Amino acid sequence: MRIDLNADLGEGFGPWRMGEDEALLGVLSSANVACGFHAGDPLIMERTVRAALARGVEVGAHVGFPDIQGFGRRRMDMASDELAAVVTYQLGALAGIARACGHAMTHMSFHGALGNWAAAEASIADPLVEAVARFDPSLLVVTSSSRAIETAAQRCGLRTAITFLADRAYHGDGLLVPRRLARSVIHDEREVLDRVRLLLTDGVVVTYEGERLPMRTDSILLHGDTAGALDLARAVRREIEAAGGAVVPVSQLA
Amino acid sequence: MRIDLNADLGEGFGPWRMGEDEALLGVLSSANVACGFHAGDPLIMERTVRAALARGVEVGAHVGFPDIQGFGRRRMDMASDELAAVVTYQLGALAGIARACGHAMTHMSFHGALGNWAAAEASIADPLVEAVARFDPSLLVVTSSSRAIETAAQRCGLRTAITFLADRAYHGDGLLVPRRLARSVIHDEREVLDRVRLLLTDGVVVTYEGERLPMRTDSILLHGDTAGALDLARAVRREIEAAGGAVVPVSQLA
Amino acid sequence: MRIDLNADLGEGFGPWRMGEDEALLGVLSSANVACGFHAGDPLIMERTVRAALARGVEVGAHVGFPDIQGFGRRRMDMASDELAAVVTYQLGALAGIARACGHAMTHMSFHGALGNWAAAEASIADPLVEAVARFDPSLLVVTSSSRAIETAAQRCGLRTAITFLADRAYHGDGLLVPRRLARSVIHDEREVLDRVRLLLTDGVVVTYEGERLPMRTDSILLHGDTAGALDLARAVRREIEAAGGAVVPVSQLA
Amino acid sequence: MRIDLNADLGEGFGPWRMGEDEALLGVLSSANVACGFHAGDPLIMERTVRAALARGVEVGAHVGFPDIQGFGRRRMDMASDELAAVVTYQLGALAGIARACGHAMTHMSFHGALGNWAAAEASIADPLVEAVARFDPSLLVVTSSSRAIETAAQRCGLRTAITFLADRAYHGDGLLVPRRLARSVIHDEREVLDRVRLLLTDGVVVTYEGERLPMRTDSILLHGDTAGALDLARAVRREIEAAGGAVVPVSQLA
Repeated sequence: MRIDLNADLGEGFGPWRMGEDEALLGVLSSANVACGFHAGDPLIMERTVRAALARGVEVGAHVGFPDIQGFGRRRMDMASDELAAVVTYQLGALAGIARACGHAMTHMSFHGALGNWAAAEASIADPLVEAVARFDPSLLVVTSSSRAIETAAQRCGLRTAITFLADRAYHGDGLLVPRRLARSVIHDEREVLDRVRLLLTDGVVVTYEGERLPMRTDSILLHGDTAGALDLARAVRREIEAAGGAVVPVSQLA
Repeated sequence: MRIDLNADLGEGFGPWRMGEDEALLGVLSSANVACGFHAGDPLIMERTVRAALARGVEVGAHVGFPDIQGFGRRRMDMASDELAAVVTYQLGALAGIARACGHAMTHMSFHGALGNWAAAEASIADPLVEAVARFDPSLLVVTSSSRAIETAAQRCGLRTAITFLADRAYHGDGLLVPRRLARSVIHDEREVLDRVRLLLTDGVVVTYEGERLPMRTDSILLHGDTAGALDLARAVRREIEAAGGAVVPVSQLA
Repeated sequence: MRIDLNADLGEGFGPWRMGEDEALLGVLSSANVACGFHAGDPLIMERTVRAALARGVEVGAHVGFPDIQGFGRRRMDMASDELAAVVTYQLGALAGIARACGHAMTHMSFHGALGNWAAAEASIADPLVEAVARFDPSLLVVTSSSRAIETAAQRCGLRTAITFLADRAYHGDGLLVPRRLARSVIHDEREVLDRVRLLLTDGVVVTYEGERLPMRTDSILLHGDTAGALDLARAVRREIEAAGGAVVPVSQLA
Repeated sequence: MRIDLNADLGEGFGPWRMGEDEALLGVLSSANVACGFHAGDPLIMERTVRAALARGVEVGAHVGFPDIQGFGRRRMDMASDELAAVVTYQLGALAGIARACGHAMTHMSFHGALGNWAAAEASIADPLVEAVARFDPSLLVVTSSSRAIETAAQRCGLRTAITFLADRAYHGDGLLVPRRLARSVIHDEREVLDRVRLLLTDGVVVTYEGERLPMRTDSILLHGDTAGALDLARAVRREIEAAGGAVVPVSQLA
């Protein structure tokens, strides 16, 4: 078993910080770095990339809506050409910072409301994923399970890595249950760890509706926003390694 | 004589436009494209790059302060590391858009208050130019004459192209006279054309103080914000070609 | 017949301008001033209010989504409490500028995608209109015909003025046909003027579907973005005055 | 002895928070609320005002540069008319939110780099303070000691309240020592408390240069960004009350 552990880093803005990036970097193999649209700013991006580089953690672009104040969590009715341009811009910005740090960007993922929209609708996934392919066809698209995004990527010749959000409930079609619904976020850490175990051993997620859903997994998404979340991240890593698995960056999966 | 004709393009934002980009593209050899910090947004950038590509015009990043509302014309007291990160971010964003359009970015220049600050103070020019070199040492730095920027570029191994702002007054040290001073901007088009001629034939600028100042010129900066400015741009091009000169993109100067 | 002529003014941002505000002020009785969220900035707002004051034109707040780059034309999925706070903030900002100019703000209207959303859905109209009432129950709500907004205003004890968008097509329920649909915007000026005439004489609009729809009118919305639009604005005013009608500011309608 | 205890509240933005506002509200008599330019957003402002109201704490507008990412700590070279408009806008926004909450705004203060600039230069203090007076001549200007601001306020007929920054070093002219200088911020809590005591008993501050400087005090500025800061805030309040002093909101000082 080879699996990637990743997390969303660099989600501060100006004087504000979010999450324990430094501690998380000791657990991760890959990091999704906010690109200044839903969070992050140039200096935070640079520091996050440098810190990841120093720990051997790969960096990717975490691409969101142009809405810092809303943290990219509010859907914005943007046209396809504008969405595509917004993706290209953010990929370029992070790739540029990685390059200036002597690093290459290996992957990308969609954040928040943009990611949810693309995961659910092919008409949104298509222009977004095509923008990634036009920018760099060697980038990996890291995504939670989504037929729309996986199909678009396959059509464009892009590889995908399916990441598991262990603390989020899934519907039977593999999409995440929206945050506004009750029990969409799982707060009990033992339950979260159980879900990781079940996925690693049986390749299965128990859905919101109570069914067993087979799910491919290349990666697990971790959090570092609380002490409990950090402990959990470490527990997930120990679990994988205890089972003889290897934690590898997303680019080394295949 | 081989000389570049360039202009600042893509200076709209959202629904707002500035200047006659399309018409100017018929006159230029290189364009400096705003990167979303002092003007421009992802879609405007993409359209500007595509339009330039279609006309054989080279594109570079026009890098400014993070101040759309002030159009990058207000100095902001930013620390060196933040300035450097802001430069890298903008270079990456435009390079990414150029790459997605199948184009390479050939040069960069500093806009407005950021450019004036760097031109006047080595302590600002140094981190800015070093950021360019870390991002891509093959980029040309297009700048109005400035000992600070030229020295920094030479030290970093970056080539420079000196661009002449034909409608702006110069001090004896080769720096631009600030806009807030009377007669810093020359509005009479005949006078502007005379200044171009004098520079092309004698390599000389008559300064604000009335002295003849020898000045190296690789490029002339044109405008397209009025019908008169467009006519002038065309007149400058005719002038060069009539004298047997060749208008070439900035990357083909040396 | 007493009717208000109004228009959306102050829709520039930083160095960018939109529309011929100064010329329009000679035709209007009331102006809706952008409040810095979808357009406008503090200095543009102040200048617009001063110019209106000098011409005897009343000012109101034109309240939109927090999305300058998208000009408030993209729906943003914001929660009710945040929408309400965004309305209050903008009302306060314009009221403050009016107050500092020795002027009172008399009315408000919702801009773009925010206005369309509120006009179509009571669950959005309610918190928005309640925010207006909490801020100042004497403000007039200027709106295109909308059962949702009119009902909410009545419940809150707010007066409304129904404004007619002469160059926009209407559905049979009195709502505007969305811009993305063909023939939603009427470009032929003669046709626009004919629609104004029909409304003023018969109180009727011919809908997108071709039916005659009775519509209350207190105000007509004019534009000043082209020479043609300005001529049309003047023609509408002449039409009203020739018919013995009086053009009065929105606050003097009742 | 009647003295005000105030603090800067509502300094979060979108999903980010700063400081322990709720705990501080139990210690304060007045709060300076960020207005969305250097920090704060409409919903944070509304919640901050409501929380203050519930605790009997007066609210004022904390007015800064339009620079969220830089937290208003970077000087921006803005022209006087634009600075004045930016002040008016922010005053109006907070006054509007206070009004919608059934509250009146009693005071204002300048934040960060804007405040430092105004405190040091009459040419900046004048247009800023005049903007306050045009908006509402009954507002109190809360400021650290500054001849420029105090003179401008007196000329405009505005009352001032001098607030003491107990953890900041002062120069002999009563101005704050800039943050970038060593020992400009006093981190030792015992020393901070000693400085408060000396001011309350002797009306004196020991300056950066070691001199005893007499200083008028109407108010003390507290912080709530760390557990230590909160304890210190409570200690200051106890100190005042133990000495028989009364903590009163800024509007009730005179």
